Amino acid sequence: MKNWDQFLAPYKQAVEELKVKLKGMRGQFELDSSPSPIEFVTGRVKPIPSILDKAQQKGIPLDRLEEEMQDIAGLRLMCQFVDDIRKVVKLLRIRNDFEIVEERDYISHKKTSGYRSYHVVIRYPVQTIHGEKKILAEIQIRTLAMNFWATIEHSLNYKYKGQFPETINTRLQRAAEAAFRLDEEMSTIRHEIQEAQAFFTRKKETKQNRDNDAH
Amino acid sequence: MKNWDQFLAPYKQAVEELKVKLKGMRGQFELDSSPSPIEFVTGRVKPIPSILDKAQQKGIPLDRLEEEMQDIAGLRLMCQFVDDIRKVVKLLRIRNDFEIVEERDYISHKKTSGYRSYHVVIRYPVQTIHGEKKILAEIQIRTLAMNFWATIEHSLNYKYKGQFPETINTRLQRAAEAAFRLDEEMSTIRHEIQEAQAFFTRKKETKQNRDNDAH
Amino acid sequence: MKNWDQFLAPYKQAVEELKVKLKGMRGQFELDSSPSPIEFVTGRVKPIPSILDKAQQKGIPLDRLEEEMQDIAGLRLMCQFVDDIRKVVKLLRIRNDFEIVEERDYISHKKTSGYRSYHVVIRYPVQTIHGEKKILAEIQIRTLAMNFWATIEHSLNYKYKGQFPETINTRLQRAAEAAFRLDEEMSTIRHEIQEAQAFFTRKKETKQNRDNDAH
Amino acid sequence: MKNWDQFLAPYKQAVEELKVKLKGMRGQFELDSSPSPIEFVTGRVKPIPSILDKAQQKGIPLDRLEEEMQDIAGLRLMCQFVDDIRKVVKLLRIRNDFEIVEERDYISHKKTSGYRSYHVVIRYPVQTIHGEKKILAEIQIRTLAMNFWATIEHSLNYKYKGQFPETINTRLQRAAEAAFRLDEEMSTIRHEIQEAQAFFTRKKETKQNRDNDAH
Repeated sequence: MKNWDQFLAPYKQAVEELKVKLKGMRGQFELDSSPSPIEFVTGRVKPIPSILDKAQQKGIPLDRLEEEMQDIAGLRLMCQFVDDIRKVVKLLRIRNDFEIVEERDYISHKKTSGYRSYHVVIRYPVQTIHGEKKILAEIQIRTLAMNFWATIEHSLNYKYKGQFPETINTRLQRAAEAAFRLDEEMSTIRHEIQEAQAFFTRKKETKQNRDNDAH
Repeated sequence: MKNWDQFLAPYKQAVEELKVKLKGMRGQFELDSSPSPIEFVTGRVKPIPSILDKAQQKGIPLDRLEEEMQDIAGLRLMCQFVDDIRKVVKLLRIRNDFEIVEERDYISHKKTSGYRSYHVVIRYPVQTIHGEKKILAEIQIRTLAMNFWATIEHSLNYKYKGQFPETINTRLQRAAEAAFRLDEEMSTIRHEIQEAQAFFTRKKETKQNRDNDAH
Repeated sequence: MKNWDQFLAPYKQAVEELKVKLKGMRGQFELDSSPSPIEFVTGRVKPIPSILDKAQQKGIPLDRLEEEMQDIAGLRLMCQFVDDIRKVVKLLRIRNDFEIVEERDYISHKKTSGYRSYHVVIRYPVQTIHGEKKILAEIQIRTLAMNFWATIEHSLNYKYKGQFPETINTRLQRAAEAAFRLDEEMSTIRHEIQEAQAFFTRKKETKQNRDNDAH
Repeated sequence: MKNWDQFLAPYKQAVEELKVKLKGMRGQFELDSSPSPIEFVTGRVKPIPSILDKAQQKGIPLDRLEEEMQDIAGLRLMCQFVDDIRKVVKLLRIRNDFEIVEERDYISHKKTSGYRSYHVVIRYPVQTIHGEKKILAEIQIRTLAMNFWATIEHSLNYKYKGQFPETINTRLQRAAEAAFRLDEEMSTIRHEIQEAQAFFTRKKETKQNRDNDAH
C-alpha cells in the first residue's frame, strides 16, 4: 500500500505555488491596463479514488504513477475568447520556472466526444526539505463555453461510467456544437467592437487634423 | 481630507470575510455531490479614484459615503445558468450573518444600456477592536455571459466616459442581445440533457421491472 | 460509522472564517499605530484519530461529539506579553459574531502538569446551504513562552502516551518554571522601557516649557 | 517620479510566492513527524515611505533601488531555538529556486545596538508577462526572543529616529541581554529533555534486552 500523504505532498505544494504564480499573471495585465487573457485560475490535486480508477483503466502500475500519470496536479485557466488561449500558451512557453513536456491541442483537433481544450503538460521542480523533486502537472486552458461543456460531460461520465445511452450522446454532441457557436459569436462581437472603436478613433483624429488645418 | 486607510479598513475586512463565506457555499454543494449554482466568487474594495468619481457624479458628499454609496465593498457571484441566479438569491436570503437592505433585479428589468445582473445590497456587521461597525456591501449575481457583456461595457465606459459614439452603441446593443441568446441556449441544452437523462432512467427502470417480472 | 467529511465541514468552514476575523484584529491595531496584543494567529480542525482518542479517553459517545467535544475547531492566538492575554480576552468578549460559552483560566490556575493558557470556548454560527448550524470552537490565548512549553509537553505526551518517566517529568516541571520566568522577564523589560520612555518624555516637555518661558 | 505600482509589482509577487514556498517547508516536517525548525513565516513589501527614508539615509539614488536596496521584499522565519537557525539556513542553501547573494550573520557577530538575526539575501527570478525579472529579497531568520527585541527597538527607532536618550539606550541593552539569556535557557531546557529522553530510552532498551535474555 502506498503512503498517499507522502506521495501527494509535493503535488499539493506544486498546485499551491502554481496557483499563486498563474493568478499573478492576471494582476500584471491589470497593472498594464490591458485586458487579461486569463479570467479565472483554479487548481486541484486529483482525489485518490480518481487516481486509482484512472491507473486501472490505463494500465498504469502504482509504482509508475510519477512518470506516467500527468494530471495528478492539475491547473485550469479560463479565458473569455478562443483567441486568448494562444496568448496564454505563449505566456506559459516563455516562463523559466518549469519545462514544457508536451502540448496537446484539442481545439484544432477536438476529441470525438466533442471535448475541446488546450493541455500543456509541464515538469515542475518542487523544493523540498530533502532536496528538489520534479513532478508532472497538467495545465488546461479553455474558454468558459468549453469549460461549461466539459463540466456537463464530466458529470454524465461520472453517472454513466462512459456508457452514454444514444439519446444523451446526441444531446451532448449538440451541446458541444452550441458551445462552439457561443465561442464563435463571442469572437465576432469582440471583433466588431474593436473595429467600431478603431473606426471611431480614426474619424476623431481626421476631424482633429481638419480642425487644426483651419487655424 | 479623508483618512482613507481608516475609512476603508472595515470594508476590506468585510470583503475578506465574505469571500471566505461565499466560497464556502460552493464547497458545501460539492460535498452533497450536487452541482453548485455558484461557479466563481470574486471580491474587491472600490478603488479611491472610482469612489471620488461616483460621489461627484451622484452628488454624494464625502461625509455621507457610508450611508449612500452601497458598493464600496463589492462581491460577485458567477453562475453557469440563468436559473441558478434565483437559487443563489434564495441562499443569501436564509443567511443570518447579514441583513438584506435592497434587491435590484436587472434581469427581469434590464437597464436601457443592456446591463443584466441581480444586485443584493446587504448590511454586514464587522467586528472591530472598537466594537461592531455595520457597513453596506453589494453582491452582484450574474451568469458568465452577463459578466462578459458587463466587462466590455465597463472598459468602453472607462475609455469614452459614458459618451459612446453611435456605432459603438449599436454594436454594444447587439452584444447584449447575443449574450442574452447565449444564456437562453445554455438553458435549452441543460433542459434537453436533463430530459434525456430522465427519459433514459425511466426506460431502464421499466426494463428492469420487466426483467424482474420474467423471473 | 460516521460520515466524517459531512460532519467536519462546518468546523472547517468556521476555522477558515475565524482565522480571517482574528487576523483582521491584528491589522486594525497596526492601522491605529498601536502595538497589537496579538502576534500570530493559527487554526486547525482536530485530526480524526485525535478526535477518536479523546472521545474514548473522556467517554464521549460519537453521536455526542457536537455537544461535548469543545475543541474540534481550534484557534490559537499568540501574545508577546502575559498582560496582552487579558486585553485579547476583552476584545473577544465585545464581539457579536459568536457567544462565549465558557472561559477557562489556566494562567491564574495553571494545570498540575505546568500547562498555562487561557481558553475561551465559543458557540459560533456557521451559515450553510441548509441553514444555520451552531458549532463549538475553542480559542487558546497564550504567550510565546507558554506555547513553547505546551509544544514540548504535547510531543512528549504523544511519545509516552501521558506516562512520563520521573526524570522527564522533573525536567518538564523545570521547563514550565523557566517559561514562567521568561514571561516575567519580558514584562519587566517592557515596564522598564515604558517607564524610561515616560520619564524622557516628561523631561523633554519640562525643558520645552523652560525654553518657552525664556522667550 | 517613479511609477511605484509598476516598480513594486514583481516584489509583491515574489513575497506571495516565497510565503507559500517557505510555509510549505513547515508542512513537510509535520509529514515526517519531525519537529519543524520553522515556527512562523511572515512576509511584506517595504512601505514606500520607508523605502524613501532608507534611500536618503544610505544615499541610494532612486534609479539604483533595484540593485542596491536588498530588503524591498522581506521574508521572516521565526524559530523556537537558536540551533534551528543554522538548520533553516542549510535548508535555504540547498534550494534551486533562488540564488543566495549574501549571508549576514548577526548572531555570531551581533550589531552594537544589540540586534541579533541571520540575514540571507537572495536573487529570486519572478516570471512576468514580459519575461523573467530577477529581484533581490531578504530572508531574516531569528528566534522569537530575537524578534521580540527587534520589535521593541524598531518601534523606539520609529519614535526617536535613532536618537535614543541614554536611559532608554541602557534599558534596550539590558533587554537585548535578557532576550539572549532567554534563548540560552530555552536551549538548555531542550538539551535536558533530549538527554532525559535518550537516557530513559536506553534504560528501557537495556531492560528489554535483559527480559529477552531471560527467555
